[in-house]
Amino acid sequence: MSNKQILEQQIKAQGEIVRKYKAAKESKEKIAEEVAKLLELKAKLNEDESPQAGSQKFTLKTPKGTRDFSPEQMAVRSSVLNKIISVFKKHGAETIDTPIFELKEVLTGKYGEDSKLIYDLKDQGGEILSLRYDLTVPFARYLAMNKITNIKRYHIAKVYRRDNPSIARGRYREFYQCDFDIAGAYDAMIPDAECVKIVYEILEILGMDQFVIKLNHRLLLDGLFEACGVPKDKFRSICSAVDKLDKSPWEEVKREMVEEKGLSESVADQIGEYVQLNGKEELVEKLLKDERLTKSKSAVEGLEAMKLILHYCDIYGTSDKVSFDLSLARGLDYYTGIIYEAVLVGGDASGDPESSVGSIAGGGRYDNLVGMFDSKHKQVPCVGVSIGVERIFAVLEAKYAATNTKIRTTDIQVYVATAQKNLVEERMKLCRQLWDEGFKVEHSYKKNPKLLAQLQHCEEYSIPLAVILGESEIQKGVVKLREVTSRAEVEVSRTQLPDEIRKRLQNYCLNGSA
Amino acid sequence: MSNKQILEQQIKAQGEIVRKYKAAKESKEKIAEEVAKLLELKAKLNEDESPQAGSQKFTLKTPKGTRDFSPEQMAVRSSVLNKIISVFKKHGAETIDTPIFELKEVLTGKYGEDSKLIYDLKDQGGEILSLRYDLTVPFARYLAMNKITNIKRYHIAKVYRRDNPSIARGRYREFYQCDFDIAGAYDAMIPDAECVKIVYEILEILGMDQFVIKLNHRLLLDGLFEACGVPKDKFRSICSAVDKLDKSPWEEVKREMVEEKGLSESVADQIGEYVQLNGKEELVEKLLKDERLTKSKSAVEGLEAMKLILHYCDIYGTSDKVSFDLSLARGLDYYTGIIYEAVLVGGDASGDPESSVGSIAGGGRYDNLVGMFDSKHKQVPCVGVSIGVERIFAVLEAKYAATNTKIRTTDIQVYVATAQKNLVEERMKLCRQLWDEGFKVEHSYKKNPKLLAQLQHCEEYSIPLAVILGESEIQKGVVKLREVTSRAEVEVSRTQLPDEIRKRLQNYCLNGSA
Repeated sequence: MSNKQILEQQIKAQGEIVRKYKAAKESKEKIAEEVAKLLELKAKLNEDESPQAGSQKFTLKTPKGTRDFSPEQMAVRSSVLNKIISVFKKHGAETIDTPIFELKEVLTGKYGEDSKLIYDLKDQGGEILSLRYDLTVPFARYLAMNKITNIKRYHIAKVYRRDNPSIARGRYREFYQCDFDIAGAYDAMIPDAECVKIVYEILEILGMDQFVIKLNHRLLLDGLFEACGVPKDKFRSICSAVDKLDKSPWEEVKREMVEEKGLSESVADQIGEYVQLNGKEELVEKLLKDERLTKSKSAVEGLEAMKLILHYCDIYGTSDKVSFDLSLARGLDYYTGIIYEAVLVGGDASGDPESSVGSIAGGGRYDNLVGMFDSKHKQVPCVGVSIGVERIFAVLEAKYAATNTKIRTTDIQVYVATAQKNLVEERMKLCRQLWDEGFKVEHSYKKNPKLLAQLQHCEEYSIPLAVILGESEIQKGVVKLREVTSRAEVEVSRTQLPDEIRKRLQNYCLNGSA
Repeated sequence: MSNKQILEQQIKAQGEIVRKYKAAKESKEKIAEEVAKLLELKAKLNEDESPQAGSQKFTLKTPKGTRDFSPEQMAVRSSVLNKIISVFKKHGAETIDTPIFELKEVLTGKYGEDSKLIYDLKDQGGEILSLRYDLTVPFARYLAMNKITNIKRYHIAKVYRRDNPSIARGRYREFYQCDFDIAGAYDAMIPDAECVKIVYEILEILGMDQFVIKLNHRLLLDGLFEACGVPKDKFRSICSAVDKLDKSPWEEVKREMVEEKGLSESVADQIGEYVQLNGKEELVEKLLKDERLTKSKSAVEGLEAMKLILHYCDIYGTSDKVSFDLSLARGLDYYTGIIYEAVLVGGDASGDPESSVGSIAGGGRYDNLVGMFDSKHKQVPCVGVSIGVERIFAVLEAKYAATNTKIRTTDIQVYVATAQKNLVEERMKLCRQLWDEGFKVEHSYKKNPKLLAQLQHCEEYSIPLAVILGESEIQKGVVKLREVTSRAEVEVSRTQLPDEIRKRLQNYCLNGSA
């Protein structure tokens, strides 16, 4: 314990002595003597105030780009996460967890130039560690390390990026990722189509039903670049230019290709003919007849894959929201097959047609990542999806704020109140009885709380029922049972109370109030 | 993307070309040409192998003192945490979350000499950060920062300590804490007694019903030291010697007091008379008549508090497991009032009477911590408890291993299987129908899986029901519905299937198999 803490404890103890002497109406001399001691201690504390010992010498805040979550925010978060987990479980996913940090070498070489955003731990002797940047690389490390060749797992956990966060746009340095992946050597597009189904079900269950799931294929993009005459070493950079088409018009993307990336204008124009296309099966069929494209083996392979997944989407009932979109490129380098991205369109769940949160889920196939961790480069093919839960939280929080929705942060069913003084033990006895019956119950931690304060607490926390005890009720063996919203009260015998509460809670849930 | 990754992709693509050419029985020359390209690429990869580009140059492991959690471990963990959360919620707790790291200054001066165990982040420009060491200090920072004067919250999250972990004893560098705290200026012992009740309910609900909750009071310990003549500046170090009485005999603790901490033998003996006592109300009454002790105001105050909480424990029905134990001292400096600790005794839940996991929950009152963060030292009194979930997980995992208990890692209710080839789309259609009905369903991701492999999957994952489709069933509009454990099969019409599944799942749950 620091000197300062010891001093503060001494001051507190001394303050109590002073208060007690005063309350006990001790002699003025005696009180003055103790007050002097108190002042001496306080003076000593002020002397001791140094940055090390102190507390208020720095601004109280959370680290840049991070935040605390209040009970209201946590209630929204757990409701969303529980719904998402229910969909993952509906499809048979298990869950795993990995440490928040990894050996730095595990992350090295996986994120390209974004590696600069990785948080490193200080070298305090021992291993060199970094905070995880996503859940995909730790997942691949887990598979390779444990020689797991097939698993269907979800992982919901925080990841860390030393970005310059645009907090207004809901981007933070610490944020949740919510990933579902299927690892294993399976047949074409069967797991891939289920990932699309899962995104579809999640957005539906969250009430965000105005969305499109864009699909594309890495091989088709590569083949398209090849067919248009993009030099092989420019594939990645042209790909990342195409990826901007969701935010920028073609003219701007073309300018980047020609002026910054040195593509000839005619090549760029050819690309432009394709990447602005989107549609369904009929577009696949059209492109399969395109003479230029079909010269590329890779493009044909991509188109055949697209045809198959669109057919499976039909069977799984997701076609109404699926769009084959040649502009979808996605930034991450490790994708090797199908890629997809869900975007909210039109009026989103916040009811604000203007609000655009953009991509709300995305993923794809990455067949080569696990092999990077295996000493024999043994591959485990993977396909997965990441749900953009932070954006979903932001949309819902905005919606609740706009509609003044009250969010319950506790599950309390019954509040036990007393109407007179000196009944704290009676309250405790009744709480115990109700806890033992399985109810969620609380009461005031004050000995003699005011009835009004107790009832206000019930309203503030949207507690459906209050049980009120007074002297006369105790003598008669009854309680007053109050419905908090209607403020209606009935007298109920103590023995009948549990059944009466159960009955009313059932009605309360059926009527769905609060 | 690193050169290596590009190379690997190229090798993979080239390998596919070779395979296809072979399959298509292309000319030997053509194949040889492509094989040569492949070998060239592979040679290039070997040249490029450097520690930066490589993967297999370091041992694949998690950082020291950390581990991954498998689906089985996660299933045990979430079942335990859900039970604990249900108790917290039964008592009206809200939940909050705070970032995994804090400004280093927030943690400074809170953990005494254990500060050396704090993980610091590397200075990458900007703020100096450390990983959180517990959840209590971030909670106090949260209260002070947001000027919250009363809240009842739980927080379940990971904390970090650069300890030399004794993994055999279940201690790690990354581990879960599971805290419940009541902050607010309330009346004596009312929230404190509820914390004891919560520990009691949690250990009962987890089936760990052989436990004792030891109670003591910081003021009584201080008063006892004072009454026995311990110099004030030795209170803390003598306290930490007393704290060892749960593991060491009195003689050893006494030796530490006398030889290491310089206490006179007679003072140590006087302490020994007290700290080996434990009991209930009668011990409080006895000590309240003890002439030496009652000379200390602080001791009397502690005893009065103890009397009150024991009385409240009676009312709350926790007395059978509660013991007033003067040897309980607890290490943390910030406690200012009641302290408690739950220990498993006799045969624990693992069924092994010899196994001793020691303390499984602990806490106490800390009225001065929040004030350390407030610029005006405004205090928010707090009392809380921390459930030792890692030890609980370890006990349960040992129990399940000893009893060969199979742990389900998924919730799948129905597996859709096919008995012949070329029925993948029929499987997918049926899965979609059952998903739409709300069932948890999966099927093989292979186009033509063997029936035996499909049924083995059901047994491995303890899936209760399998639906088997064959050509003849499809023509008749029926399926075979199989109970996986009994292997009994019945034919059910497609239209009756959902109801039939619901009925059987209900029976399955009632019989509680698997």
